[in-house]
Amino acid sequence: MDRMHAMRIFTALPIYAITAEKLSAGRTDSEFVQAVLAAGVRLVQYREKEKTMRAMYDECCALRQLTRQYGAVFLIDDFVGLAQAVDADGVHIGQDDLPPEVVRRLLGPDKIIGLSTHNASQLEQASALSGVIDYIGVGPVFYTQTKEKPAPVTGLSYVRYAAQHSRLPFVAIGGIKEHNIAAVAAAGARTAAVVSDITGAGNIAEKVAALRAGMTSPVSSRAY
Amino acid sequence: MDRMHAMRIFTALPIYAITAEKLSAGRTDSEFVQAVLAAGVRLVQYREKEKTMRAMYDECCALRQLTRQYGAVFLIDDFVGLAQAVDADGVHIGQDDLPPEVVRRLLGPDKIIGLSTHNASQLEQASALSGVIDYIGVGPVFYTQTKEKPAPVTGLSYVRYAAQHSRLPFVAIGGIKEHNIAAVAAAGARTAAVVSDITGAGNIAEKVAALRAGMTSPVSSRAY
Repeated sequence: MDRMHAMRIFTALPIYAITAEKLSAGRTDSEFVQAVLAAGVRLVQYREKEKTMRAMYDECCALRQLTRQYGAVFLIDDFVGLAQAVDADGVHIGQDDLPPEVVRRLLGPDKIIGLSTHNASQLEQASALSGVIDYIGVGPVFYTQTKEKPAPVTGLSYVRYAAQHSRLPFVAIGGIKEHNIAAVAAAGARTAAVVSDITGAGNIAEKVAALRAGMTSPVSSRAY
Repeated sequence: MDRMHAMRIFTALPIYAITAEKLSAGRTDSEFVQAVLAAGVRLVQYREKEKTMRAMYDECCALRQLTRQYGAVFLIDDFVGLAQAVDADGVHIGQDDLPPEVVRRLLGPDKIIGLSTHNASQLEQASALSGVIDYIGVGPVFYTQTKEKPAPVTGLSYVRYAAQHSRLPFVAIGGIKEHNIAAVAAAGARTAAVVSDITGAGNIAEKVAALRAGMTSPVSSRAY
């Protein structure tokens, strides 16, 4: 799919699922992605840090086919070469990765780039990169154990700030679970990235339905 | 420089230096590369694992300028995106990295690709990839502490095997130091990769001269 189509999916859908095989209750990443796609998720990010590049490549080749079958957006965390190798729809990068302008040059105009931000100053800089990047990550909203060295927790106030100031679509991320996702939506997030609450769920379809309900509950719609 | 020119340098020069900041006696990688270039080395590989991608990018931008000033070949270990980002002359990949054919597709025809091999079977497969890859790594010849999970030590017999059977230029690697480099040359290696013996040297110019002498000593020339 092209970049514009991918961003239409991004802005239309409330749940953005991210892999974390170590927190997947014994599921492989492929089993996890299959399950979230079956549950209706259409934004999937592959985020693994400790596998070999060859293992990630083999896995992502299969995930690319699978996500394509479902018409889902498939993004890779950090590894620009891997994203190119498997023709992912784009990458998600952090503040410590290659500069966004460089990633755009490498990927060309047809791919999505997302950039993590952790405070107002980074959000400001990221907003100024519209044209280079496509969306902004906002968080970590709550305490998270899925990143080795997370930035300081931002709380919901940063989500509210992003909802008011971001000139690009944004996704709230970090410790978002069924019990707090309505508050994230109420703070102004239209998309929430969820990791361990989905990867570790007993029933992924039910979990995704509950999370989606949290994003569209009356509490959250009052915020708009 | 183009790929053919880079490979002419590769095949003409006996010493291939690799960075390892942790084993550099307090030197930064930039100070190390400056010193080996001043000592006449023209094959430099940037190999770091624990820095952030942004830190590696910033450092490699500077190293790219420096190596270009000296007409040296500048290669990046593993990170294909980083190599593209800084316009390195190529990459060195291992058996667990992206497949060589994929790396060639990403880098295009003008870059060097080197592939590590650790046994005769891998050497055979790598030799069959001529056109895709440009040179082969052969080792670890001796015990090495610069890789976290090195393959089993191959000994000099694998260097002798490579000298007889490789259809591509090869570089011997792994635990090669001043005291054993003549034996590596005698086993048939025309190029030796050296890491900690140079990075940790008190005087890098003297160390490089001694290593170069070891590669061209009467002991080694008897092997040809």
